[in-house]
Amino acid sequence: MESKNILIKDATIISNEIKKSSLLIQNDKIVEISDKLGVSDAEEVINASGKVLIPGLVNTHTHLSMTLMRGLADDMPLDTWLNNYIWPVEAELNSEYCYAGALVACAEMIKSGTTCFNDMYFFMDHVAKAAEEAGLRGIISHGMIDFGDEDKRKQEFKESIRIIKRCHNTGDGRIQVAFGPHSPYTCSQELLSQVKREAAKYGVRIHIHVSETQKEVSDILEAHGKRPFEYLDEIGFLGSEVTAAHAVWLSENEMDIIKQSEVKLSHNPSSNMKLSSGVSPVSKLLNKNVCISIGTDGPASNNNMDMFEEMKITSLLQKVTTMDPTVLNAEEVFKMATINGARSLGLEDQIGSIEVGKKADIALIDARSPQLTPFRNPISHIVYSANGGNVDTVICNGEILMQNRKLLTIDENRILEAAQNASEELLSKK
Amino acid sequence: MESKNILIKDATIISNEIKKSSLLIQNDKIVEISDKLGVSDAEEVINASGKVLIPGLVNTHTHLSMTLMRGLADDMPLDTWLNNYIWPVEAELNSEYCYAGALVACAEMIKSGTTCFNDMYFFMDHVAKAAEEAGLRGIISHGMIDFGDEDKRKQEFKESIRIIKRCHNTGDGRIQVAFGPHSPYTCSQELLSQVKREAAKYGVRIHIHVSETQKEVSDILEAHGKRPFEYLDEIGFLGSEVTAAHAVWLSENEMDIIKQSEVKLSHNPSSNMKLSSGVSPVSKLLNKNVCISIGTDGPASNNNMDMFEEMKITSLLQKVTTMDPTVLNAEEVFKMATINGARSLGLEDQIGSIEVGKKADIALIDARSPQLTPFRNPISHIVYSANGGNVDTVICNGEILMQNRKLLTIDENRILEAAQNASEELLSKK
Repeated sequence: MESKNILIKDATIISNEIKKSSLLIQNDKIVEISDKLGVSDAEEVINASGKVLIPGLVNTHTHLSMTLMRGLADDMPLDTWLNNYIWPVEAELNSEYCYAGALVACAEMIKSGTTCFNDMYFFMDHVAKAAEEAGLRGIISHGMIDFGDEDKRKQEFKESIRIIKRCHNTGDGRIQVAFGPHSPYTCSQELLSQVKREAAKYGVRIHIHVSETQKEVSDILEAHGKRPFEYLDEIGFLGSEVTAAHAVWLSENEMDIIKQSEVKLSHNPSSNMKLSSGVSPVSKLLNKNVCISIGTDGPASNNNMDMFEEMKITSLLQKVTTMDPTVLNAEEVFKMATINGARSLGLEDQIGSIEVGKKADIALIDARSPQLTPFRNPISHIVYSANGGNVDTVICNGEILMQNRKLLTIDENRILEAAQNASEELLSKK
Repeated sequence: MESKNILIKDATIISNEIKKSSLLIQNDKIVEISDKLGVSDAEEVINASGKVLIPGLVNTHTHLSMTLMRGLADDMPLDTWLNNYIWPVEAELNSEYCYAGALVACAEMIKSGTTCFNDMYFFMDHVAKAAEEAGLRGIISHGMIDFGDEDKRKQEFKESIRIIKRCHNTGDGRIQVAFGPHSPYTCSQELLSQVKREAAKYGVRIHIHVSETQKEVSDILEAHGKRPFEYLDEIGFLGSEVTAAHAVWLSENEMDIIKQSEVKLSHNPSSNMKLSSGVSPVSKLLNKNVCISIGTDGPASNNNMDMFEEMKITSLLQKVTTMDPTVLNAEEVFKMATINGARSLGLEDQIGSIEVGKKADIALIDARSPQLTPFRNPISHIVYSANGGNVDTVICNGEILMQNRKLLTIDENRILEAAQNASEELLSKK
């Protein structure tokens, strides 16, 4: 990457405090925040008057390529959805389809202000290729399932390690790889224990689904005599390198285990609501100082990846289920989608807040919109009034990915057409 | 209005069936739907290839001018919010402020595909003026509160009747007026009974808040020995001309009363969640064939008026609270926001569906967006994937209000500035 300075001038910057100032980017980093910065300080100047500057949002649980299955199967329970619709289609996936699905998901993320994601799926080198081309930051993991089958388990490790060797720390360091054991009900104890060892060996994180449904909890109770997080704790699986998605059904003891083991959680309210999985006790978890962030889950169970919508739903769902309107205030929810997202992926030193020295992962929101007028309380507007469509400009790792809602790194029309074709071809095979 | 033909060509039309066709508008009405229509049939042609044509959305509970208080007070209970923030500011309102607030709300509605609203607030002739200029359809009502004070009651009737005489059936018939008794806990029985008689006399509807919070139910129980809908039934207030907003806390008996009296309900999930008011039993009410539609409530308690977001939240909230993912499927929710909205306002012969002979109230959604790709199941995409920002073109009463997201009837920049100024001036007086 050639050296480049970008000045973002006169933005309302959401940092430790909220103030109108200017921000200077050099290469991939934020190097100065000051109202004294002038246009002569940079080669490129973005006039951000009337715009709010926030950290790029961090989506901590995705299945990007499932974009191809958006709207395929709604209004049904998780097991019907998986067994009768998703898994049969997934059996027909290939690298080309996954690439096309991931690329349109990258376009959707950029257009809604997300600069970093945590993805688990298949053909992950092709997902990495899509993210690299789009200019996004992300952690990818091959979804591992063995159902106790030793041959399958060997294949899953072979593929996971292939992806680590091929993709970890690529794309100017934007792409990292993790292990992705699907869940305690689809993975054997052998697989989980081996993942723990291999993750330590390769120095990578672990991404897993845990306690999404009541059925999962009762199945694990029956199989292992313990609840999911208790079982995972017992086999020594848990730790600060683990990001667990969903975490809907938790006992008090499990919440304490999560806290003590420093497991990071990804809360996925739209998916949990749409599939009637349940409501995660987010407010309690935050009170216990558990690190909990926000994920959209895949576009086949949400059905979009708009982190603004997900922030609003996170707050509203907790308020109505606890019957306490003071819980999950706008600022807390905004932190979940930014700095807690970064912490959940072990990236808190690099991203998740607007600070000198951090990576330049930034979204600018155009406040000149009826939906955001009057302009008064930017964080309230971001969480409760905005949607992804209010994002105007997105920068990741110092590169401008979108300006005035035009994608700069990838060709939007070509991507939409490719995804449409891939999806039609894929479903015709089912 | 001069006579004018508009042809919308090659849209995916959501009518009784979903098909690609063209639609011809003459003056204020839809006159033909056919794939044989050609460009020579109209003076103006809108190419809608790649776009989905739906009825303009109907928002059945709003307080447009409260836009001025958006983001003023979040994360607190309804009574604190009302007593400490909203009511003190409302004491300083004037017609100019209400006009500025209503106009930016009209801009927001148009930009998110809403063509008809049901509004209760103050200085309603100025709200009517805003809607008339914007070209929207709406029912307006002066919010009446007497707390048992006879002088106040007289003033409220004087103002309500002034608004009826001045605004009812104005704006080419787009603007109607209703009575707006605020609620059974802020209005005396005398006021409610007189509203019922006067509404019959003037041939207008009634718009009221009922059973929003548990506190309201217990207060009414204490005051009248009955639950709110039982009390309103007993005093002969209920009927098919009544639209009741919220209806969160309902006994089985109250649901039967609502059904039998043909009261129309407006469900406001975001507001009910944000204020921790509770969850309306929408799925049960639909099973009883109660007419229930969707409203956003005011922008100070939501904090936007995006009916796409409200449709999604309506479905997701019912799915997770009933723990049944099959309830409130996409098609049912879409009906709530369109034809049920029309029925809730007594306008089902004119609007709420795409049919020859109905008013040309139409929104076009641009499906060429990453968020709506692949294009497969339009109603699923509308309810679960889209937001207001995906709306491209809006027509109301045969007039194009927005095309390619540019407002045509009102000056967006001027309106945003006026609302910002009005809001700042208003709050400086508190």
